[in-house]
Amino acid sequence: MTTTRHSVSFLGLGEMGSELARTARRAGHPTIVWNRTAARAAALVDEGATAAADAAGALDADLIVVCLFDQASVHEVLDPVAHLLAGRRLVNLTTTSPEGARELARWAAGHGADYLDGGIMATPEMIATPQSAILYSGSATLFEDHRTFFEIWGGAEYFGDDAGMASLYDLALLSAMYVMFAGFFHGAAMVGAAGVPAKEFAARTAAWLPALMPSIAEYAAVIDGGDYAVPGQQSLHFSDISDIVNASRDQGISTEVVDVVQRLIHRQIDAGHGNDGFARVIESIKKGAAA
Amino acid sequence: MTTTRHSVSFLGLGEMGSELARTARRAGHPTIVWNRTAARAAALVDEGATAAADAAGALDADLIVVCLFDQASVHEVLDPVAHLLAGRRLVNLTTTSPEGARELARWAAGHGADYLDGGIMATPEMIATPQSAILYSGSATLFEDHRTFFEIWGGAEYFGDDAGMASLYDLALLSAMYVMFAGFFHGAAMVGAAGVPAKEFAARTAAWLPALMPSIAEYAAVIDGGDYAVPGQQSLHFSDISDIVNASRDQGISTEVVDVVQRLIHRQIDAGHGNDGFARVIESIKKGAAA
Repeated sequence: MTTTRHSVSFLGLGEMGSELARTARRAGHPTIVWNRTAARAAALVDEGATAAADAAGALDADLIVVCLFDQASVHEVLDPVAHLLAGRRLVNLTTTSPEGARELARWAAGHGADYLDGGIMATPEMIATPQSAILYSGSATLFEDHRTFFEIWGGAEYFGDDAGMASLYDLALLSAMYVMFAGFFHGAAMVGAAGVPAKEFAARTAAWLPALMPSIAEYAAVIDGGDYAVPGQQSLHFSDISDIVNASRDQGISTEVVDVVQRLIHRQIDAGHGNDGFARVIESIKKGAAA
Repeated sequence: MTTTRHSVSFLGLGEMGSELARTARRAGHPTIVWNRTAARAAALVDEGATAAADAAGALDADLIVVCLFDQASVHEVLDPVAHLLAGRRLVNLTTTSPEGARELARWAAGHGADYLDGGIMATPEMIATPQSAILYSGSATLFEDHRTFFEIWGGAEYFGDDAGMASLYDLALLSAMYVMFAGFFHGAAMVGAAGVPAKEFAARTAAWLPALMPSIAEYAAVIDGGDYAVPGQQSLHFSDISDIVNASRDQGISTEVVDVVQRLIHRQIDAGHGNDGFARVIESIKKGAAA
């Protein structure tokens, strides 16, 4: 049995956009590609995609996927052709703020297009592997109709009709990523000052950090439980990281990455919660820097 | 064939010390335990360990393991009995600074004891599982003679005769851990302000962060290579995290955790390196806050 697969166009062929288009093409979908710098389409055309002459030409597809630099570049590319969007289905995978996604959803609705926003939780190399997931929010119809298609890129999860929710989730996970990377760089700088290659430290970090995920699950249970004093936790007093701060200073590196963690811990200790568990640190973040 | 296993004593029976002692006992070693608050020894005595009446009594063992609160508490416990340390083998698993470990090594040598310092890369629950590792530095003889014993707790790695090196490595890995936790708390606070339970966010974080370990290996290769301009990297310009900072502010939470990452990125951009790869962020840390 053969089925006619729906056509998909891709506007924006950076590393991520190219990988998304490539995966669609390999899954047998008629694939139209467009990029402001046309040369970037060449490799995909070699693989069987069709290059659109201009952005307008890329709108004539069953599904339009946009993967550009930021919210402003989405407007730059689509505003001039907005009159062609009525009745179209637009999936925006450009990283934007939650407010940015909501603005684009309103803008698309104003032009008669159905809008789904997505946050990609993957590097380009991870697309179409089990490690890849894309978070969606916005049009439920658009998501449900194309869920099977979206799954060619990895996990596909829907977070409701607030178009900003996928972005919020995306940015929250990205913040955890960037902050984790900063922690790795800090540790690598500490031992690097004693001559240890970053590669050696990275190998240990890659074994160490994933082994800590059960702790994250435990912190989450404490946070949701709402009682930071439940037994069996490492206390905030015990979590003081002066040793880390001092050793970093002794190594002659900046302490700012670990200083922020120490500040979060000590705001809770100073407020009289030193015997509560480490998970209480989230209260220092929730309540803002002034708390 | 039966072998007589060497005796081990444990001073300090917090959660970690108790678990280390329990593992030694289960491996068939005559195990002597002591804790300032004697009641903590009861469970281990039930399991077959012998309680020492005082710290001095705990020194009469082939191997003496100390796992106390901090460097000062090691001195508080051992200074009064230091005259009994001559010819003894002391393994200090108390978390101290690198300088603290070096001071204890000199102090132990002054009393005629052989000294090995260790940094435990595990939570108490992880001891004796494949996820556990202890990093050692100091006396090579002590490490080599007891390597097989140390391996009952997990991986055992030796970092040379500078007693401070294991601690430095330990603190570097702990800094990566604490900073990663801060990133998780930040993300959980972001989506938490929109009503998402921390548990749900933790489950996604636990899938997302371990999948990023290959990126850490790539950053390390760039750092060690010394050329932050090698192709194929995400540029610092592209790594600007204004979206994350702004979305955090919109959610009404503190931005300080992500602000520090943004500062590290922008110090490099401001210095004219915006087209270099993200790994260059380590230079912001290496060169200190003033750079």
